[in-house]
Amino acid sequence: MTGRPAAGPVVGVVGAGQLARMLAEAATPLGVHLRVLAGDADEGAPEVVPDLVRGAPDDPAALRAFASSVDVVTFDHENVDHGALAALEAEGVAVRPGVATLAFSDKAHQRVAFASAGLPVPDFLVVDPAEPDALDQLIGFAERHGGRLVAKASRGGYDGRGVWMLESDDLEDFLDGYDGAPLVAEPRLDLDLELAVLVARRPGGASATWPVLETVQVGGMCDEVFLPASVTEDLAARAAEVARRVAEVTGAVGVLAVELFVVDGALLVNELAPRVHNSGHLTIEGCATSQFEQHLRAILDWPLGPTDPVAPCAVMVNVVGGPEGDPRDRQASALAQVPEAHLHLYGKRSRPARKIGHVTVLGDEVDEVRRRANLAADLLAGTAPGTAPGVDVAGSVDG
Amino acid sequence: MTGRPAAGPVVGVVGAGQLARMLAEAATPLGVHLRVLAGDADEGAPEVVPDLVRGAPDDPAALRAFASSVDVVTFDHENVDHGALAALEAEGVAVRPGVATLAFSDKAHQRVAFASAGLPVPDFLVVDPAEPDALDQLIGFAERHGGRLVAKASRGGYDGRGVWMLESDDLEDFLDGYDGAPLVAEPRLDLDLELAVLVARRPGGASATWPVLETVQVGGMCDEVFLPASVTEDLAARAAEVARRVAEVTGAVGVLAVELFVVDGALLVNELAPRVHNSGHLTIEGCATSQFEQHLRAILDWPLGPTDPVAPCAVMVNVVGGPEGDPRDRQASALAQVPEAHLHLYGKRSRPARKIGHVTVLGDEVDEVRRRANLAADLLAGTAPGTAPGVDVAGSVDG
Repeated sequence: MTGRPAAGPVVGVVGAGQLARMLAEAATPLGVHLRVLAGDADEGAPEVVPDLVRGAPDDPAALRAFASSVDVVTFDHENVDHGALAALEAEGVAVRPGVATLAFSDKAHQRVAFASAGLPVPDFLVVDPAEPDALDQLIGFAERHGGRLVAKASRGGYDGRGVWMLESDDLEDFLDGYDGAPLVAEPRLDLDLELAVLVARRPGGASATWPVLETVQVGGMCDEVFLPASVTEDLAARAAEVARRVAEVTGAVGVLAVELFVVDGALLVNELAPRVHNSGHLTIEGCATSQFEQHLRAILDWPLGPTDPVAPCAVMVNVVGGPEGDPRDRQASALAQVPEAHLHLYGKRSRPARKIGHVTVLGDEVDEVRRRANLAADLLAGTAPGTAPGVDVAGSVDG
Repeated sequence: MTGRPAAGPVVGVVGAGQLARMLAEAATPLGVHLRVLAGDADEGAPEVVPDLVRGAPDDPAALRAFASSVDVVTFDHENVDHGALAALEAEGVAVRPGVATLAFSDKAHQRVAFASAGLPVPDFLVVDPAEPDALDQLIGFAERHGGRLVAKASRGGYDGRGVWMLESDDLEDFLDGYDGAPLVAEPRLDLDLELAVLVARRPGGASATWPVLETVQVGGMCDEVFLPASVTEDLAARAAEVARRVAEVTGAVGVLAVELFVVDGALLVNELAPRVHNSGHLTIEGCATSQFEQHLRAILDWPLGPTDPVAPCAVMVNVVGGPEGDPRDRQASALAQVPEAHLHLYGKRSRPARKIGHVTVLGDEVDEVRRRANLAADLLAGTAPGTAPGVDVAGSVDG
């Protein structure tokens, strides 16, 4: 751990993944000193953050020592000890977002609270798998929804993990093999499309919302995000309003990402992340203030920045590890074909299906920009067909 | 020193100032690992670069050990041992820019070489102050230029240091008190305005030039830079052409900044910096590819990125230390009045007249954007009149 600088705030980030790494990128120009609590060696932040404290985020003693050394505590991920955080909060530590907001990561809590606040959510059923009538409840719910449902673990899922598509006939076997957290059952919806709205909120409630984003999921994992979303202005305005309400209901401080389903033209809240989020990465180059800078400004209770897009369209595509090689050796081939691509590599080891980076491309026409962003991401991942020598390098500024 | 990552290039930066800090900001998303040779404790980079090697850049042994641990050597500043660098280069170390380019930091060498290459330079005279007729030569030069001249130390000057405005009558006293490097005498010119052009050049000669910038100097120190420059398209094109020629003549690799005088509508090369430069800081937000990213791409021999501006105008204003306080405690007051400002604080201790940061603002109308950028810089420096409580915070997104 290095000492704090002579002036300015120290922000403590619990967790050392790529979100901490990108928070560090935003903190440096702002003159905000970042200290990171890192539990695992192969993560994104340690390569670029000198002020690293080694300790497990789920160890209350480590968390307490870390919190006492910084001005504000924030998060790279939600796998933290909420009891320990609540105790720190009670002692006056600035934990942002607070424990009450982090509690909404629990999907059961979220669905119940949002439904009672009048927010649009899918029909749902919370089931404790240990209850004797759990199976009957799930079968009854499935029968009301065409004999099938989606079951989600209320805690611990991400990137498609902890989500199961089930038919009535599967439910008994599924429950026999499941011993996790309470389940949330929902109907299998026929989606028009998926949206994400990012909101930043200061402790006093002042907030700023970015343009509504369209997200493309592949296998339950975010693959691509772009703006403008292909929705009407009216729907975009309603999506932004839902997100602002979610920020209020959850009492969020900092950035909050709200993922929405559009079903038959109507909005339903799907998930939320009480932090900077994959869906907001395109704001780094695509909007006047990035989600990472805005998050720091919000948790420090500084005035928020404008969120307007800086180009007619922006597309972000995730880079996942491929069967061989590493994207850190392939930047030149990606830039040869897409010189305008903004590369973001997270400093994590490449493994198949692991998110290890993303690419953002700005431009005028969404289909063309999507094509180019996907090409750059494929070239980095080593999965593009056109990586052999002799391919056309159209678009390179130096031919 | 931390180990090199499992994949990707390692760039070694000699010197740990704000240029190294901003190179680090650009290296992180690219997945380029940065290692920095740092000689002084109070500089900008150590706060944000974990892979720091302590050693003096002018110590040949330290330089050699450092160079052997990286793939490419580049520079935060030019105060390096050229003999040691030349030896490394001869052994095949990738020193970028190379010693032949760094030699152009010597103003005497530069003027002579540029004049013989047909580049437009002011009338000049190189004088060795130890020569017995040095005074006579200077007096003769001054007499041909209205009885006055500018004397510049050929090496070691920066930010207005090493430059003297002299009359014929001052010359004897001046020479008596001077025992530095050879002097370059030039006429005192009546400038229309000053320009800067940044060029990035790959080892094979492919290059990219940013839009021509207008610079405003105060007391010999760059105060403000903006685009578009208030010159005709024709003059801008000629300035870009001069800069490209300078890059070729100097054999530059990486970013090169060329500062130009405009006198009676004609261009004259003033200075050059064979590296990223203060005049190019607005490219971070103002252009499709920043000078820092482009420098890394150029020295790694990767394809260069587009350099188009992303907004109609962009203004950068330097932040210098004031008599009290630190800009790292004043971000919120600057952002309250100029929420769209992009702040860059360098992590250096605040001292009067020391450059410790800069601010960039993008917008549509250059006078208004200049006003707002200057306001933000003044607020950070603690010198703005409107910092008392109760000032209007118009423009804040959250009112």
